[in-house]
Amino acid sequence: MSLLDWLIVRGLPLVPRAIVGRVASRYVAGETLDDALRAVAQLAQEGAMATLDLLGEEVVERAKAAATASEYEHMLDAIAERGLPANVSIKPTALGLEIDDALFRAHLERVFAAAGRHGNFVRIDMEDATTTEATLAAYRELQPRFPQIGIVLQAYLRRTLADIDALPHAGANVRLCKGIYIEPRAIAFEEYGTVRLNYLAALEKLLARGVYTAIATHDEHLVCGALALLDRLRVPRERYEFQMLLGVEPELRRILLAAGHRLRVYVPFGRDWYPYSIRRLRENPQVARHVLRALVGRSR
Amino acid sequence: MSLLDWLIVRGLPLVPRAIVGRVASRYVAGETLDDALRAVAQLAQEGAMATLDLLGEEVVERAKAAATASEYEHMLDAIAERGLPANVSIKPTALGLEIDDALFRAHLERVFAAAGRHGNFVRIDMEDATTTEATLAAYRELQPRFPQIGIVLQAYLRRTLADIDALPHAGANVRLCKGIYIEPRAIAFEEYGTVRLNYLAALEKLLARGVYTAIATHDEHLVCGALALLDRLRVPRERYEFQMLLGVEPELRRILLAAGHRLRVYVPFGRDWYPYSIRRLRENPQVARHVLRALVGRSR
Repeated sequence: MSLLDWLIVRGLPLVPRAIVGRVASRYVAGETLDDALRAVAQLAQEGAMATLDLLGEEVVERAKAAATASEYEHMLDAIAERGLPANVSIKPTALGLEIDDALFRAHLERVFAAAGRHGNFVRIDMEDATTTEATLAAYRELQPRFPQIGIVLQAYLRRTLADIDALPHAGANVRLCKGIYIEPRAIAFEEYGTVRLNYLAALEKLLARGVYTAIATHDEHLVCGALALLDRLRVPRERYEFQMLLGVEPELRRILLAAGHRLRVYVPFGRDWYPYSIRRLRENPQVARHVLRALVGRSR
Repeated sequence: MSLLDWLIVRGLPLVPRAIVGRVASRYVAGETLDDALRAVAQLAQEGAMATLDLLGEEVVERAKAAATASEYEHMLDAIAERGLPANVSIKPTALGLEIDDALFRAHLERVFAAAGRHGNFVRIDMEDATTTEATLAAYRELQPRFPQIGIVLQAYLRRTLADIDALPHAGANVRLCKGIYIEPRAIAFEEYGTVRLNYLAALEKLLARGVYTAIATHDEHLVCGALALLDRLRVPRERYEFQMLLGVEPELRRILLAAGHRLRVYVPFGRDWYPYSIRRLRENPQVARHVLRALVGRSR
């Protein structure tokens, strides 16, 4: 990261909310479920699938967690109603993971049951490392009863190769991403090239075991490495998908779709768009440069 | 690329031809076939093999393409006469690929027949991506009748791993290089590390299939990766060769020869040395720095 990039990223919280919002509109579908479903329909025309992400996390009130579970159910109903090629990604902390593990699991079961009714799929997102163990434990325990669910593994975590060994033996479904939280060195790789190396090692392990894998990255180096692994291991097209975030690298998305790969776009929406947008901007200085452009009035 | 390198590369066309020539004399054997054969004989004393490259491309006149085919035949005759360890690399556009496919193939057959008479080998060079499909198609169709021919695959092209699948099942002979033309992102990887990654993936695929492979690179990272692959896959010495350009990285060339690897030097010659020299200098800012040195009179 250059000094300029560092300044941009550190300065982000000082940027007025209205300007972050103007830039973030590329990365967030809107404030309502309707906005999100419109974005999904547009992506479907491109040949891309989607996964809905209701923004908002770290819920500490039981009522708020129950409301989020209902909202997830409602999202699954709406997708089925409109017949859209989308599933739902859910956040453990939004379902009460930090309040009470039993409450969390009860909410998970409600959402999974809704997915089951519609023959749809739900992926449990992975948040920071304080939630990893509880999230993986819930997945391992519930997956035999709800086969249409998946999990996320983060390549920057030192534990990830071992976590692959502990996946359910049948029907495991993993999204592999680099990971974007700031974690202590004791548990996470920090250096860019090292995270890439572990990403490809984890991807090879997943694919070699026949795990359905969602290859979530915008890093062309990893896309190239993934394509080489898919080729070498002769993985059939229906056993993996690429995943990208809404608004990030649409050119690479089109290149992969044109080559016939399945690809799913992560579509965030909701009133709590601010923290997500800041995290996106922090993660990607290229994107953060748009903030600067917006500040000087050159944003489109 | 640093700003200085960028300025050097962009400024190249402004450098007087005589000075480019002075620097390029390291990279071009001379204007005549005799010059080239003298360079080949000298390389043979070092233990290196050679491949002759008659400079000049993008021929649009039928007579010029026919004359080039005759010149290639003449090169094969001269190599046989002098008993030198050299073969010939030929350029599709110089044989009329852009004029007429039937003319192109007729010229290919003439040159391949000449190689056959002498028990020698001809490699079809790969030019920019507008010629890739026609070049590979000609190779695939003619190779069963002319087994002593080879092709080039470029690691920066997204199609390369798939092109390996389409190689002839018996006797395929591939030079693998990174690729030096400027191609659109839709068809080519751009980032340096990504091209390296795809190079090693393609090399592994070629070697694992038993394809005779010419490992054409001056990038020590790739030489290191290639040596590891050759070791891991236990590829016998007669199933591969390294390839380098005349005048580039002679030290690495000597290191590989001293370690007992077969190595072939690409020896360009001819009156059309200027565009080749500019491309070489553009490709390699380290080399382009020699131009600067020549300009300030410190060249040796």
